[in-house]
Amino acid sequence: MPRYALKIEYHGAPFAGWQRQNDQKTVQGAIEDALARLEPRAHTIAAAGRTDAGVHALAQVAHCDMERDWDPFRLSEALNYHLKPAPVAIVDCAQVAADWHARFSALQRRYLFRILMRRAPATHQSGLVWQVKQDLDVAAMREGAAHLIGRHDFTTFRSTICQAESPTKTLDHLEVRSVETPAGPEIHFDVRARSFLHNQVRSFVGTLERVGAGSWHPDQVGVALQARDRAACGPVCPPQGLYLAHVDYNIAPFESA
Amino acid sequence: MPRYALKIEYHGAPFAGWQRQNDQKTVQGAIEDALARLEPRAHTIAAAGRTDAGVHALAQVAHCDMERDWDPFRLSEALNYHLKPAPVAIVDCAQVAADWHARFSALQRRYLFRILMRRAPATHQSGLVWQVKQDLDVAAMREGAAHLIGRHDFTTFRSTICQAESPTKTLDHLEVRSVETPAGPEIHFDVRARSFLHNQVRSFVGTLERVGAGSWHPDQVGVALQARDRAACGPVCPPQGLYLAHVDYNIAPFESA
Repeated sequence: MPRYALKIEYHGAPFAGWQRQNDQKTVQGAIEDALARLEPRAHTIAAAGRTDAGVHALAQVAHCDMERDWDPFRLSEALNYHLKPAPVAIVDCAQVAADWHARFSALQRRYLFRILMRRAPATHQSGLVWQVKQDLDVAAMREGAAHLIGRHDFTTFRSTICQAESPTKTLDHLEVRSVETPAGPEIHFDVRARSFLHNQVRSFVGTLERVGAGSWHPDQVGVALQARDRAACGPVCPPQGLYLAHVDYNIAPFESA
Repeated sequence: MPRYALKIEYHGAPFAGWQRQNDQKTVQGAIEDALARLEPRAHTIAAAGRTDAGVHALAQVAHCDMERDWDPFRLSEALNYHLKPAPVAIVDCAQVAADWHARFSALQRRYLFRILMRRAPATHQSGLVWQVKQDLDVAAMREGAAHLIGRHDFTTFRSTICQAESPTKTLDHLEVRSVETPAGPEIHFDVRARSFLHNQVRSFVGTLERVGAGSWHPDQVGVALQARDRAACGPVCPPQGLYLAHVDYNIAPFESA
């Protein structure tokens, strides 16, 4: 059976997350249903990141096994046709080797988190950013973020329902950037690791927001990390600013990386 | 009565345009209703641009006359409170002179139009761009656009229901830019004039899209302009890529320009 890698963009709002659930609308379910319209049988696809309810993707990666030999462009067009009107789009598709795996072959996941800082309610960006009303101190947030980079026991920044075997992970990159947009000043977090614990990015951002607001000293982030105690974490921030932005592979499946 | 200038951002989708209509939801109606919650009486506000159904604003400007002496920040906060959950936000507010007029004092209006070029359906940007499936030739569009700049009889690019006294207007600026976005390549049109005819920007963009797609030679834009005939216009493009982006005044009402 030929295997295809799919690059997938989605709006998280209408979905109870990525992972198929019998009684709820999920992104995986929507794509598997679309696949069943092309080859009628049960389909199970594997993805690089199992995003939570409300979390978006710019470039989730999944793979599917097909019976027919599909032209990748035609496969993506047919899937997009059957996915409508759900806000899920196959933005790239490529045939891959039978042992290439969207989840297990992934070397690194990148997440983007967007905070919009302004008083007036967001209109065009509503649901696409976490809006905070006060200005945040980006320099202080960067100082706080520096404590998190590297290999650590991230128990503090891990949901209590996290199923990962170990709380120890290596955070490769956590960049905090100021970005001017037509709707106002945003802060973008570029967060990269081989793999993440459940709620890890949202725990980071919620904690760093407290630093930016001046409620936490930047060094308190290091103290919280050392505590290895979920109770030491700042508030977990909402999902609508979070995007699975990129997945790196040793053998990149798509021409456009 | 103190007069206040309001800078207004809105998502055009749920509205039958700017202008108050008795039986339909409009942006002017939403703001006048919010004003009536603050000072119970009939309010009539004037705006720089009367945008059509589905058209967005990044910075529409209107003015209102109040009985009480409002602190501008508190006025914008109170309006935003009463506007919820409509996607309309007062993003700036300032007291202005009694003879300052949002419409008649305006020197120039700037519109932004966004085209997203990609095959896969837009998700996050759905409703915020005009999506076209083929790549467009930006250089050809620029060449076509050059025919439109300056003082012309724009009958070709004017809706048949346009109520302006004269079809002659001066187009100050029509820039066609390539912009890379996370969702794919966009083309942005930056269009500036003292005032516009009804559907003028959408008539320009719809015509220039035909040039970018290769159906029209760039010089045909000049021929269409010279024809002074509505039938010579290309197809009028849809409203969801259009934004009222800025209004210039001799005396700028807002600190942030």
